Amino acid sequence: MAKLMPPDPQVEFPFRISRFSHVEYGVRDLNASRKFYVDTMGLVVTHEDEGCIRLRALEERGHHCLRLVQADRADVRAIGFKVPDDSELDRAREFFEQRSLETAWCEPAFMERALRVRDPWGVPLEFYARMDRLPSLHQQYRLYRGVKPLRIDHANLFVPDVDGSTSFYGSMGFRLTEYTEDAETGRKWASWMHRKGNVHDIAFTNGRGPRLHHSAFWISNPLHIIEFLDLISTTGYLASIERGPGRHGISNAFFLYVIDPDGHRIELYSSDYQTVDPEHEPIKWDIDDPARQTLWGAPAPRSWFNEGSVFAGTEPVEPVYAGTPIVAP
Amino acid sequence: MAKLMPPDPQVEFPFRISRFSHVEYGVRDLNASRKFYVDTMGLVVTHEDEGCIRLRALEERGHHCLRLVQADRADVRAIGFKVPDDSELDRAREFFEQRSLETAWCEPAFMERALRVRDPWGVPLEFYARMDRLPSLHQQYRLYRGVKPLRIDHANLFVPDVDGSTSFYGSMGFRLTEYTEDAETGRKWASWMHRKGNVHDIAFTNGRGPRLHHSAFWISNPLHIIEFLDLISTTGYLASIERGPGRHGISNAFFLYVIDPDGHRIELYSSDYQTVDPEHEPIKWDIDDPARQTLWGAPAPRSWFNEGSVFAGTEPVEPVYAGTPIVAP
Amino acid sequence: MAKLMPPDPQVEFPFRISRFSHVEYGVRDLNASRKFYVDTMGLVVTHEDEGCIRLRALEERGHHCLRLVQADRADVRAIGFKVPDDSELDRAREFFEQRSLETAWCEPAFMERALRVRDPWGVPLEFYARMDRLPSLHQQYRLYRGVKPLRIDHANLFVPDVDGSTSFYGSMGFRLTEYTEDAETGRKWASWMHRKGNVHDIAFTNGRGPRLHHSAFWISNPLHIIEFLDLISTTGYLASIERGPGRHGISNAFFLYVIDPDGHRIELYSSDYQTVDPEHEPIKWDIDDPARQTLWGAPAPRSWFNEGSVFAGTEPVEPVYAGTPIVAP
Amino acid sequence: MAKLMPPDPQVEFPFRISRFSHVEYGVRDLNASRKFYVDTMGLVVTHEDEGCIRLRALEERGHHCLRLVQADRADVRAIGFKVPDDSELDRAREFFEQRSLETAWCEPAFMERALRVRDPWGVPLEFYARMDRLPSLHQQYRLYRGVKPLRIDHANLFVPDVDGSTSFYGSMGFRLTEYTEDAETGRKWASWMHRKGNVHDIAFTNGRGPRLHHSAFWISNPLHIIEFLDLISTTGYLASIERGPGRHGISNAFFLYVIDPDGHRIELYSSDYQTVDPEHEPIKWDIDDPARQTLWGAPAPRSWFNEGSVFAGTEPVEPVYAGTPIVAP
Repeated sequence: MAKLMPPDPQVEFPFRISRFSHVEYGVRDLNASRKFYVDTMGLVVTHEDEGCIRLRALEERGHHCLRLVQADRADVRAIGFKVPDDSELDRAREFFEQRSLETAWCEPAFMERALRVRDPWGVPLEFYARMDRLPSLHQQYRLYRGVKPLRIDHANLFVPDVDGSTSFYGSMGFRLTEYTEDAETGRKWASWMHRKGNVHDIAFTNGRGPRLHHSAFWISNPLHIIEFLDLISTTGYLASIERGPGRHGISNAFFLYVIDPDGHRIELYSSDYQTVDPEHEPIKWDIDDPARQTLWGAPAPRSWFNEGSVFAGTEPVEPVYAGTPIVAP
Repeated sequence: MAKLMPPDPQVEFPFRISRFSHVEYGVRDLNASRKFYVDTMGLVVTHEDEGCIRLRALEERGHHCLRLVQADRADVRAIGFKVPDDSELDRAREFFEQRSLETAWCEPAFMERALRVRDPWGVPLEFYARMDRLPSLHQQYRLYRGVKPLRIDHANLFVPDVDGSTSFYGSMGFRLTEYTEDAETGRKWASWMHRKGNVHDIAFTNGRGPRLHHSAFWISNPLHIIEFLDLISTTGYLASIERGPGRHGISNAFFLYVIDPDGHRIELYSSDYQTVDPEHEPIKWDIDDPARQTLWGAPAPRSWFNEGSVFAGTEPVEPVYAGTPIVAP
Repeated sequence: MAKLMPPDPQVEFPFRISRFSHVEYGVRDLNASRKFYVDTMGLVVTHEDEGCIRLRALEERGHHCLRLVQADRADVRAIGFKVPDDSELDRAREFFEQRSLETAWCEPAFMERALRVRDPWGVPLEFYARMDRLPSLHQQYRLYRGVKPLRIDHANLFVPDVDGSTSFYGSMGFRLTEYTEDAETGRKWASWMHRKGNVHDIAFTNGRGPRLHHSAFWISNPLHIIEFLDLISTTGYLASIERGPGRHGISNAFFLYVIDPDGHRIELYSSDYQTVDPEHEPIKWDIDDPARQTLWGAPAPRSWFNEGSVFAGTEPVEPVYAGTPIVAP
Repeated sequence: MAKLMPPDPQVEFPFRISRFSHVEYGVRDLNASRKFYVDTMGLVVTHEDEGCIRLRALEERGHHCLRLVQADRADVRAIGFKVPDDSELDRAREFFEQRSLETAWCEPAFMERALRVRDPWGVPLEFYARMDRLPSLHQQYRLYRGVKPLRIDHANLFVPDVDGSTSFYGSMGFRLTEYTEDAETGRKWASWMHRKGNVHDIAFTNGRGPRLHHSAFWISNPLHIIEFLDLISTTGYLASIERGPGRHGISNAFFLYVIDPDGHRIELYSSDYQTVDPEHEPIKWDIDDPARQTLWGAPAPRSWFNEGSVFAGTEPVEPVYAGTPIVAP
């Protein structure tokens, strides 16, 4: 069972991050991706050209939360975070430069300047303050289709050193909400961290990495996920169902994992809880507690533990800590 | 995929059955059973004495749909069917006598006379016309707890000869709604048959039998099943979750299977469809179509294919037709 | 509050009716009707020509449940009932002839012969045994749109003599499930009667009549009704929302009433309960009990008590029994 | 319809508020209040003595979100806000002192020091940084009862000068998300403001005030609200249903308003959306747009526009701006 640990000490953060914002995926067939993300899942196209489709979810006002870029192989090119205003970008640059991480300014379409940097393990990050704002769609109910995705919620990464990643992102101001600990060694097996006031903006799991385990969309009602399962299992996407539906012990989310045409994993995520209090105590799970993965007890398939999307330009490495192997059925 | 076959020919039925009505279970610990069925699932006790608890679901007016009887071993003592009026019982008796099946009159508590008989494979059946009627509870919403079971729906049996059972119950007036056929031999692997106008009152699956695979309760909303999973996984019943939640291809039901403290399997069953037209065409499923079991593709555990409750006084036998083995993961 | 009354005596019925089956509406603009019933509500077109659109709901196998016929004025041309086989039609004809009601055979498209007759108050009835059967759609989830209507459920009529109509339809085999009585006079103010085993196939309310108060479609989940409200209130159909959402005391249904482009009222109906036992005791409601209309207390608008669709060829008359006026807010 | 207006300019805020946190109600009968809030709504008692019941919702870790205090008359004694750490309280005190608003330190039970102050119109505010933290309950699903309230969400006040209140709370760092404007005069009729990243922590409506219009609890699923309506309408609380269920245009919330035994109004609130981006554009509604109140068109009852709870020690005054009267049906 979950136990409470003392809250994080309050620290001054070097720059402020508002929230996880977007992902850029390399995909091999834009038509197949559009069919999956737009026609089936129900995201909305906000811009499309020969090489890239940009999408937003139904309550988002920012221009896009997904960029699907025509590529020779499936990969992930950026994990995007929004900062509240432009001056934070300079503070962010300083933070990374102090840590000898190379930064670069760029101007992605539909954004003002963005800061690109790789974290110490090679994860490509993109920070920005201003993206084009679009009129609200959330009361145009004729647009609600598929799984009715309301907003992007978080990214979950395989990393070779969960303690290291947790500490590094903690120094950027991410707060720990839940974590899995190996009782024997005291090392973290996985951690969930947030900026925006719910369970997570980013999470880390021990494994060959860095690789993107999944990005997640927030769904307002478990019934939308059930109806989405009915839809995809009768429209040619049966094989894209990887795991679920179920309830995570960690995060309390009602979840479904699906695999896009390029093998990228998407979580459809409902529930979770509010964590805006800075003293919000992280919940500690023991690695041997099966309820942490699935409150209802059904094990995840082996693929869920092993497969992930590589980051362009970064070769994954084996975890520094082999740890207790998690054995899927 | 499912295919249509010509409708059943209209025949004159020897006696009329209204619906599947109740089950009598032998249980080894009435307290444990009450905790499961009443405190957890949410059925309502209508009578209780030292040896027996009688229960009804929330919209039922008949006195009981479950009888839990203190016993030395877990078994099933009766599968109960209601006939519309008393005179049908005499016609039923004639039907069984003509087939050399021994009948007996009895007077179960809270009922007028009932006819007891075993089907040709030894399944103990109980037919009755009048059971005590109780005031309606369905708008006493403070009683809605657990999975909010509204009514008993059907019984599903392992039988050694599905074609034989289907034909025998068909001669009693049960109508086929769906079935699984082994394309190679043309034999039925499983069949679903109804009297009350939905997908089934009784169903048969090929296997060592007769044994009761499960009895099922009708739940009005998939959300109640999701919330029941949350409840039982955090109140000591995690191990009772056997399979689900999922969507059956056959019957289109949103389902969950749980195991009671004696190993009896209960299905919590939502959705299905109306079948009151006598020419309603049965849907044929191929035994190799994975969607028939779970539209969403997740396989059932091995226990679901192998385990069932024995009928008191009847020794199960191996199926006459070994057929295509269904291999669970 | 509701009270139990002794069950209906068992009687031999002159012919058997399976269920309420369809309605034929006269509409003034087929395009507007298609936009409402197909594009918005989510019914499926099964045949369309210049003068008529035929529709079915998502789990129906019969060819149609609605016929929308181009007309000069909005009216209702037939209330359709299915009988289980052709021979019942001859028995039905005899029943009506004995009561000096003129009958006629006709052959509506997509049906074998049908019997047309007006009830003693002029309601045009259409009885048939065989309509074209179509392949099942209920697992083609890409077709689920709008309010996701699964099947037609019942018709509700204003009639000038509820006691008379209840008695007449009772003699046809309809069974009473709930009714409203004026305690002072002992007369029925409204009644609900069924053939198919749920709360009703037909219902009668005291008022200028006969007129059709509404026809109803069965919706499997209250959430679909909530989402339909979001949809229609943002796609130009706000004014079509007449009453609801709410819970009826009578029938226990979660309901919404909408008005089609011709003023025909449609109920979207979820919940209700099983009534297949012939001794099922009708629930009696007192006319002064506000919970009978809306369990949650919100009153219906005046239009709901006053407005209905006329039957072609029948002039409505004032009720024989003025009774307690029901005053809307 | 809603229109976008330019975003709030970024300003430096004088102190940081995390979120709306709690309300203290004066109630005349603690037993009646407990029956309503605990036994019926499903809040959890965290402390109770002769004069006060303290309650929390199911996912809250802070000690309480409601204090029900035995009193001679029904009133409201404090609107509570949490600040992220203790030093903010000194900055808050400075903010109010600079505006000549009298402040006082107090030590409410289960809290460290709190700052009490009245806003310029007499609303009693309570700011604190640390309240006792309790173990999480959100996965103890046996505790989920009634409407399954997850957390307190916001307070809504009648105020005599909406522009004034909006400006004052804006200077405290609350950000505008939606507002109603009288097109003729350009004055705000109502405004919604947040700190925690959803639609609101506090809202203001033009009217005799200050008075508390309602406090609101966040409910995760509209079906919980529907089932709560069934429960309260059959357990003696029918008269406590004031308005709903419905969908607000403003905030997009699925709502129900109920009245507690002392006349305090509680909103059960589901949906809304994320607003963490500081440039999130407020949505402007015209006062003549009926969709802003109820997307589905049903008007609110007159009581909803007129009745509210007085704040102890503050006499409400008429609005400075009579404005366009909003006429309820």
